[in-house]
Amino acid sequence: MGYNLGIDLGGTKILAGVLDNQGNVLSKAKRKTRADGSIEKVIDRIVDVTNEALVHSDVSIAKIECIGVGAPGPLDPLGEIVHEAPNLGWRDVDLARILREKFGRPIYLSNDVDAGTWGEFIKGAGRGSANCLGAFVGTGLGGGLVFDGNLYRGSGTMAGEIGHTLIDRDGPVCVCGRKGCLEAYTSYKYISRSIWRQVEQGKMSIITSLVDEPGGEICPPILKAAIEKGDEMVVDAVETSARILGLGLGSACNLINPDRIVLGGGVVEEFGAVYMNKVEEGFNVQAFKAARKMAKIVTASLRGDAGIIGAILLARSAMNGR
Amino acid sequence: MGYNLGIDLGGTKILAGVLDNQGNVLSKAKRKTRADGSIEKVIDRIVDVTNEALVHSDVSIAKIECIGVGAPGPLDPLGEIVHEAPNLGWRDVDLARILREKFGRPIYLSNDVDAGTWGEFIKGAGRGSANCLGAFVGTGLGGGLVFDGNLYRGSGTMAGEIGHTLIDRDGPVCVCGRKGCLEAYTSYKYISRSIWRQVEQGKMSIITSLVDEPGGEICPPILKAAIEKGDEMVVDAVETSARILGLGLGSACNLINPDRIVLGGGVVEEFGAVYMNKVEEGFNVQAFKAARKMAKIVTASLRGDAGIIGAILLARSAMNGR
Repeated sequence: MGYNLGIDLGGTKILAGVLDNQGNVLSKAKRKTRADGSIEKVIDRIVDVTNEALVHSDVSIAKIECIGVGAPGPLDPLGEIVHEAPNLGWRDVDLARILREKFGRPIYLSNDVDAGTWGEFIKGAGRGSANCLGAFVGTGLGGGLVFDGNLYRGSGTMAGEIGHTLIDRDGPVCVCGRKGCLEAYTSYKYISRSIWRQVEQGKMSIITSLVDEPGGEICPPILKAAIEKGDEMVVDAVETSARILGLGLGSACNLINPDRIVLGGGVVEEFGAVYMNKVEEGFNVQAFKAARKMAKIVTASLRGDAGIIGAILLARSAMNGR
Repeated sequence: MGYNLGIDLGGTKILAGVLDNQGNVLSKAKRKTRADGSIEKVIDRIVDVTNEALVHSDVSIAKIECIGVGAPGPLDPLGEIVHEAPNLGWRDVDLARILREKFGRPIYLSNDVDAGTWGEFIKGAGRGSANCLGAFVGTGLGGGLVFDGNLYRGSGTMAGEIGHTLIDRDGPVCVCGRKGCLEAYTSYKYISRSIWRQVEQGKMSIITSLVDEPGGEICPPILKAAIEKGDEMVVDAVETSARILGLGLGSACNLINPDRIVLGGGVVEEFGAVYMNKVEEGFNVQAFKAARKMAKIVTASLRGDAGIIGAILLARSAMNGR
């Protein structure tokens, strides 16, 4: 029996999982990334969390056939180097080589959103589709593309950046510095800002009683609590954000005519049906009728595991292809 | 020696061409579509213009190996039926069967923009690329996609509708009825309207002396004449339109990471470098640096012939694949 190791390296947390060759998750371990420190310390934490996962499943590293790592892109086409990861403060980090030396096993890096999309496509909510758009809404908005059953990475392995689709020329400033990108509307920052703007205008919301100090980014559980209490202002802010995401997905649908759109990420998981309904509403406005009828929008089903599952699958394909 | 026949059926004109098997254009003939009449009369004109092209090249219909037709989409996946062509006023017209009965030769329909993109990819300005976006700016704005060297049509052969990418939620109304689609900014109508708006505001332009009656759609040669005379208002209106197209192409570049973008169509041909420079400017604002560095924007090189060349190539592939 062979085993594989999946590592999902995010800006906030590192997730490691041991899977058998059937793709069953045997054990997982999670740790904070603490990317503000040195690269070495993040590497140490990757090694620690990986060892923890191995111990939990009682699988020795020698039994690991391959290691798949999902890392923030862009990466080099061979899956060796993290070229630029602003959330980690990394530039041109030779991550595959470093981890290969630590573990002594075959290793391959994929873009984290590509890995999540591929995991959902093969084992999750994207199964059975031919052309699938994955979109993951969290701190940022990332996308992955599957065309004719294959992961599409584009000419420089940079495809999928749906978050930086211009949606309004006079829109809010995005983290990338541009104005009116789709990601600028899907972030917690945008939702929080539109709530505080209304509070300033004297409108009432229970959010003021849930947050110690007004004006900052409101964390997802507090937004959710306000929605569950039926606070109209918060419901409205979250729904507006979801609806605009739907408009952007509608534009993408007109361009690439997919048969499945898988939506995942923390925001989608946190807000559930309230959010998805408004995404559909925006989508139905912008996407052509014939195109939207065949593009089923579904919620990602593997949740946090999509990244490690996809990273392993992509690593195994890369190994077999070499 | 074998020959092929290409037919480009547009809302304004029908172009027919006889090509040899090396893809050389031996003869062409053109006729107005006059789509306001009956379907039968348009079919008659297709037959007439085709016969005219055959006579010019002295090739008999019996020597035609296959007929490729570029038609406004969406079509059915087998290349038989025109499902919906608002410019022609057609719905579910069994065009391949009808023309097969008229000519008695193998025939295959492609979407006209797909045909143009494929023609440019194989024989024109897209040659040598792997992932190519074709965008044709005329009355409308159509797009075609080549991924990993293959024409990508999406799940319902509807891919490529880049004209209906939302670019501004409060933008002008598009012909499709939505607000702020990219196509709403690239049309002559938009350019004309922004000129007349400024004229109304009392600004000076020689356009008022070139047009009999103010307020309507200004035809391309008149716009071009005004630009050549250095009329700032017209230059500005055309440049604004081009810059916004560039922003939309930048969004698409972030999503699909192509290595070539081929721009064609009447508007591009009419305005040339003035237009292309502003497209580049907008593109450079919206597209990520690494992605835009590898996505070369070029002008289509086959001009009006891309459609008939591409339609024949696609028809031949479809025949061989069956």
